[in-house]
Amino acid sequence: MDLPAGMLAELLECWPVGRLATITPDDLPHVLPVLFVQQGEWLYSPVDGKRKDGTPLARVRNVAAHGRASLLLDHYGDDWSRLWWVRLEGPARVVEPGAAEQQVLMSRLAAKYPQYATVPTFTARPRALAMRPERVVAWSQSGDIAPIEDAIRERAAR
Amino acid sequence: MDLPAGMLAELLECWPVGRLATITPDDLPHVLPVLFVQQGEWLYSPVDGKRKDGTPLARVRNVAAHGRASLLLDHYGDDWSRLWWVRLEGPARVVEPGAAEQQVLMSRLAAKYPQYATVPTFTARPRALAMRPERVVAWSQSGDIAPIEDAIRERAAR
Repeated sequence: MDLPAGMLAELLECWPVGRLATITPDDLPHVLPVLFVQQGEWLYSPVDGKRKDGTPLARVRNVAAHGRASLLLDHYGDDWSRLWWVRLEGPARVVEPGAAEQQVLMSRLAAKYPQYATVPTFTARPRALAMRPERVVAWSQSGDIAPIEDAIRERAAR
Repeated sequence: MDLPAGMLAELLECWPVGRLATITPDDLPHVLPVLFVQQGEWLYSPVDGKRKDGTPLARVRNVAAHGRASLLLDHYGDDWSRLWWVRLEGPARVVEPGAAEQQVLMSRLAAKYPQYATVPTFTARPRALAMRPERVVAWSQSGDIAPIEDAIRERAAR
């Protein structure tokens, strides 16, 4: 199923959560939910600091070692006729605190997620993962883009 | 964060969707949303047939080639204090139609998902992926299991 470019941009703008798949240095699949924003050709996902023992979080270690990621945006609900998913695949890299991209990321995050105004979740200058979607695969149970259009409309209306 | 075994079993029983990460034969990360049921030590996820060109679906090809999977159960909502995720990791394999496990799977699926009574989504004898969770990692924003307990209660009350 083809997703019009404008609709993909709208989805990335409004959809709050993705599930990020990476590969560990031991060649095992890894997945976790992430926040993200788009900026130009790249998607950025903030990473909040390090583990208590000082080692980087798994997703940072994975991207540094492997350099590829897959991000899934999807809707699940009890009405199966409305199911859809969009998967973005491409090269990924770690953005270190202090990089020029970091400033843009912080303002984009604050604009997309009002929670940042009140929830001090992240350190002042978080690392980030950056991913460039070079392949997009889209699916819906109904076989057309209508459920994705509806999801964008409902989300944007909040 | 440690998840009591009983709570994990309850979560697997009621939670309808997981995001399954696998690794492609080309060593790329792959992820998509899946239905699943638990049976004994294994989790099973049905796979509805083949692609139109006759080749197996990517997740089947991936599991056949790599043999490991990672399944993420999680909740995202605008209230970040309630965020949680549970990731299950372990060996995975393909269950072919006609295997003894297949009959059990079909009845477990029908019991968990009332949609199967009215939505003829799957072929009569779908393949399945089986995964044995040998490692469980759990996280919540609040640092305790309360949000997961609440999610189980809310889901089970439907």
